[in-house]
Amino acid sequence: MTHDGQRPRIAVDAMGGDHGPGTVVPGALRALREGCDAVLLLYGDADAVEAELNAADHAGLDVTVVPCTDTIAMDESPAAAIRRKADAPIVRAMTDHREGRVDAVVSAGSTGAMVAASLLILGRLGGVERPSIATFIPTVRGETLLLDAGANTQGTPTMLLDFARMGEAYCRAMTDRERPTVGLLNIGSEPSKGNELAVATHELLRGSGLAFHGNVEGNEVLVGPCDVLVADGYTGNIALKMCEGLAVFLKELAGSGQLEPAELAGLGAFAEVVKRRFNYEVYGGAPLLGVQGISIICHGRSSPLAFEHAVRQAERQVRCDLPAVIAAATASDPEN
Amino acid sequence: MTHDGQRPRIAVDAMGGDHGPGTVVPGALRALREGCDAVLLLYGDADAVEAELNAADHAGLDVTVVPCTDTIAMDESPAAAIRRKADAPIVRAMTDHREGRVDAVVSAGSTGAMVAASLLILGRLGGVERPSIATFIPTVRGETLLLDAGANTQGTPTMLLDFARMGEAYCRAMTDRERPTVGLLNIGSEPSKGNELAVATHELLRGSGLAFHGNVEGNEVLVGPCDVLVADGYTGNIALKMCEGLAVFLKELAGSGQLEPAELAGLGAFAEVVKRRFNYEVYGGAPLLGVQGISIICHGRSSPLAFEHAVRQAERQVRCDLPAVIAAATASDPEN
Repeated sequence: MTHDGQRPRIAVDAMGGDHGPGTVVPGALRALREGCDAVLLLYGDADAVEAELNAADHAGLDVTVVPCTDTIAMDESPAAAIRRKADAPIVRAMTDHREGRVDAVVSAGSTGAMVAASLLILGRLGGVERPSIATFIPTVRGETLLLDAGANTQGTPTMLLDFARMGEAYCRAMTDRERPTVGLLNIGSEPSKGNELAVATHELLRGSGLAFHGNVEGNEVLVGPCDVLVADGYTGNIALKMCEGLAVFLKELAGSGQLEPAELAGLGAFAEVVKRRFNYEVYGGAPLLGVQGISIICHGRSSPLAFEHAVRQAERQVRCDLPAVIAAATASDPEN
Repeated sequence: MTHDGQRPRIAVDAMGGDHGPGTVVPGALRALREGCDAVLLLYGDADAVEAELNAADHAGLDVTVVPCTDTIAMDESPAAAIRRKADAPIVRAMTDHREGRVDAVVSAGSTGAMVAASLLILGRLGGVERPSIATFIPTVRGETLLLDAGANTQGTPTMLLDFARMGEAYCRAMTDRERPTVGLLNIGSEPSKGNELAVATHELLRGSGLAFHGNVEGNEVLVGPCDVLVADGYTGNIALKMCEGLAVFLKELAGSGQLEPAELAGLGAFAEVVKRRFNYEVYGGAPLLGVQGISIICHGRSSPLAFEHAVRQAERQVRCDLPAVIAAATASDPEN
């Protein structure tokens, strides 16, 4: 539960994402209007954010604008920008989170800057080697939590074991699964298959006490053979983007002029299934697990619906005290 | 061109693949019946292979059975099996290839055993650090040659530069593309993105003289942004299987009982498009590039159609003297 039993205070970077306040503000407000019991703090350029607030219906909602004058561009070096730009929205918001003035931070700005701000300002949890981005992937059988989706570019076996423990605990806290199964993304089903990292990680996972499903090959990912799927951040990010690319693929194929009318109609009907069943927007954003706080990273292309769900997700994570859940899961790890 | 201007002599492992001679033999014969001007040598259990030959129409075709008594199981240690089982089909066929009695070897047996047999019996080309499996992926814009598709589990920047040069040369020799573009599978578009391997490989490719497209993210792969896509064998195999998994995904979704009748009809029509346009069978098999010979690795699940195309592909590779093409492309590399 949140500090002093109050409603969760959610800090949102109103300037983040490809479309800025015009997309972030309506989406975040809708969460509150539709039953999310939270306080909203919108960090960003005061004029721009207030213009969006005034254009929207926010009567009776607990919303505050926190004016910020700096901005961090997508191509800036994250660590340098965090150190130099004290008045950028994510730096202000993370600082307020560390000092107990807000309970969670949501941003669709640069992923690198969010990871750096979370690490430098909030700090790592004690038992965790590296934090990890955890993303739900919609699958035929439900959904699979993939991590690391790209917080790290290199991996070690003990890092991947942390990812497994954090992902399993997050999955337990946020879904109705009591004992989520954990799979390892790999290039063959046998324990001996894969690169050195995969072979050593397989061994660690087998002895971890987790419900280890074994290796998962690329062609199985979208079917959904396990609840939690572990990979290093490089491989995990490529796998995630290949899943997300299904919609891109359908759009390009539809526009390619190569299909017969009947095929085009079939593709259109299937695209609707994908849009409804394999829609990343309903997950809102992905938490960075393993830091001393709640940090939710949204896709740069997030829609108002995605921001609405990111705020809802932040509220739930505050109410279940996610950092404590993750700390408990990793503290029990004899490897750390 | 083949030795002495003769017709290419294609050695086929009749025992390889999930369905053995009953699938391999009819497929390979069909290539010859449908205009592939080659001599076929079928390696395997004499009784089983001859039974399939007698059941099929092979009048007027130049086909010989090469009896072999050993077999290599899918789960055997490849290098040990190659050394111990001199009378297994791929060991006999590779030995015959090395000694000039056949011009190419095709097998749908264990990939590891084919890579080991090619390396141990044929040997590497001089300028090549490690051989690589090169697979065409059907894309919206045509097809992309992916390598390494899984011959190696680890990669180095110079290995990936070799893969790029070999893939570019293969693409030039086998398609009408005069200057194929080369992309690097990675997790962001900027040169600084990715793991250490990707960053260093990007740098090498930029200075390689190849038509370097830059980094390719996971969501772009099936669109087809470049002619040749380079990755280490671990990442490349996961990416390849995720593409192949599209058909698995559609089948599982269709059978899941979760769709409305109209959606199911749309999915069915789209599955037909995928089957026709994104059909891996027409590529037959994937060459192992960088060895002193022609070694074609087929999928374990290959159909007769896939074996037909693998034999056609072998014939073309013999006629263009593929090992010489690859040797020329890698000899010019100042890094080697």
